[in-house]
Amino acid sequence: MNSMCNNVLGKKNWIIPDCELPQPGEGVAKGHESVIIVNDSDVDAEINVEIFFTDKDPYTDIKWTVGAKRVKCFRMNNLEHMCGFEVPFETQYALKISSSTPIVLQYGRLDNTQANLAFYTTLGYSE
Amino acid sequence: MNSMCNNVLGKKNWIIPDCELPQPGEGVAKGHESVIIVNDSDVDAEINVEIFFTDKDPYTDIKWTVGAKRVKCFRMNNLEHMCGFEVPFETQYALKISSSTPIVLQYGRLDNTQANLAFYTTLGYSE
Amino acid sequence: MNSMCNNVLGKKNWIIPDCELPQPGEGVAKGHESVIIVNDSDVDAEINVEIFFTDKDPYTDIKWTVGAKRVKCFRMNNLEHMCGFEVPFETQYALKISSSTPIVLQYGRLDNTQANLAFYTTLGYSE
Amino acid sequence: MNSMCNNVLGKKNWIIPDCELPQPGEGVAKGHESVIIVNDSDVDAEINVEIFFTDKDPYTDIKWTVGAKRVKCFRMNNLEHMCGFEVPFETQYALKISSSTPIVLQYGRLDNTQANLAFYTTLGYSE
Repeated sequence: MNSMCNNVLGKKNWIIPDCELPQPGEGVAKGHESVIIVNDSDVDAEINVEIFFTDKDPYTDIKWTVGAKRVKCFRMNNLEHMCGFEVPFETQYALKISSSTPIVLQYGRLDNTQANLAFYTTLGYSE
Repeated sequence: MNSMCNNVLGKKNWIIPDCELPQPGEGVAKGHESVIIVNDSDVDAEINVEIFFTDKDPYTDIKWTVGAKRVKCFRMNNLEHMCGFEVPFETQYALKISSSTPIVLQYGRLDNTQANLAFYTTLGYSE
Repeated sequence: MNSMCNNVLGKKNWIIPDCELPQPGEGVAKGHESVIIVNDSDVDAEINVEIFFTDKDPYTDIKWTVGAKRVKCFRMNNLEHMCGFEVPFETQYALKISSSTPIVLQYGRLDNTQANLAFYTTLGYSE
Repeated sequence: MNSMCNNVLGKKNWIIPDCELPQPGEGVAKGHESVIIVNDSDVDAEINVEIFFTDKDPYTDIKWTVGAKRVKCFRMNNLEHMCGFEVPFETQYALKISSSTPIVLQYGRLDNTQANLAFYTTLGYSE
């Protein structure tokens, strides 16, 4: 395959182990969590989101869409993005994300609770 | 395989090279180290933990369990989590983690020794 | 293959999901974004850069070159590096990077908007 | 293979794209760069280190050893660790690391130039 061909990059299944929604805090940049998804394919990505908890079964009623050849940022403190599910503050959870077409996914957190902005990021684990 | 099937994600063997327990520090968020493990399978994960040192053989008497379809956060400064092993402060070590069923693992550290919270995270290396 | 052989490391296709150009800010170290590329091969790497947006088709008119056995740092706020494309501040985008020869790629961001320098880094996703 | 077997984890070849030695700075924790290597095998790891630059051929006269079942932290500002090579401050470089036996490798940087400690870490790229 020619490396310059427009081959589609990504995987269909992702996990982010360490999710936790920080308080907004006092700084200019409000604390938040995000999942950023790239869809390199020519069709829309239909995505199922599962939330894993420490002490109960996963919540599975969240659906996302990312358009063909687009990037989209989902915020965990945005009720519309979470299809009405209210993510609790400062509580351990994890995300499993399954897509109809290959995607690439990164997790980002901004903590500003001590007015000294700190970042936390990783690519997701993919298969 | 249909991408929407409930396939189990993860690997059984993981290494985190750079572990070091920070002092709690002075800030609101106390300094700590964590290993966060997702078990996406339908059976409990029975996990062996090995601690590697710079100058002596590994310590191998730590066992963890993560329930089916759960996420769990283990704290390195929690004696119960470490099965009684006291992790020394500010000392280089590494973790090798082997599970009976596939898991996904992330390492996180919060340093607050200068009252200016800093984060350090990576997925583990897996096979 | 002997591990000590001079085998070429890397992949030809990379994606960085979470790009966003920070304001320079007030600190000594000015806020910026970088893509750092290693070319471990014996020939120059001819590289195509695509910028993905949230609401329009990708921009594809950026070319980079990294010499054989060299590392090079590209700055997103450097108009020459971006072939005249002006990256907007504080706007979500993603990068897809395709090379004629294997490369290894890391993304770095320095945020200094609250005069309290924070870092954000990840290896890119590769295939 | 039984997941509880003592299989050796790691890869022989690694690259860290984004290396840069920070000034020590003014804080309690002095700014530095580290490469942390785990040797999970039963034999010592004999390691070749190559430094890539932006404008000249790689420097290849550095050798490291990591004992069997040990972790070791190499500091880039430690002349002994670098076999006499003086890494310049605030200058882009990259590391290619090749081992005689599988290893796992993480890069860490602590920046303290504005007395507000920031971390930067990633696993290396491996093959």
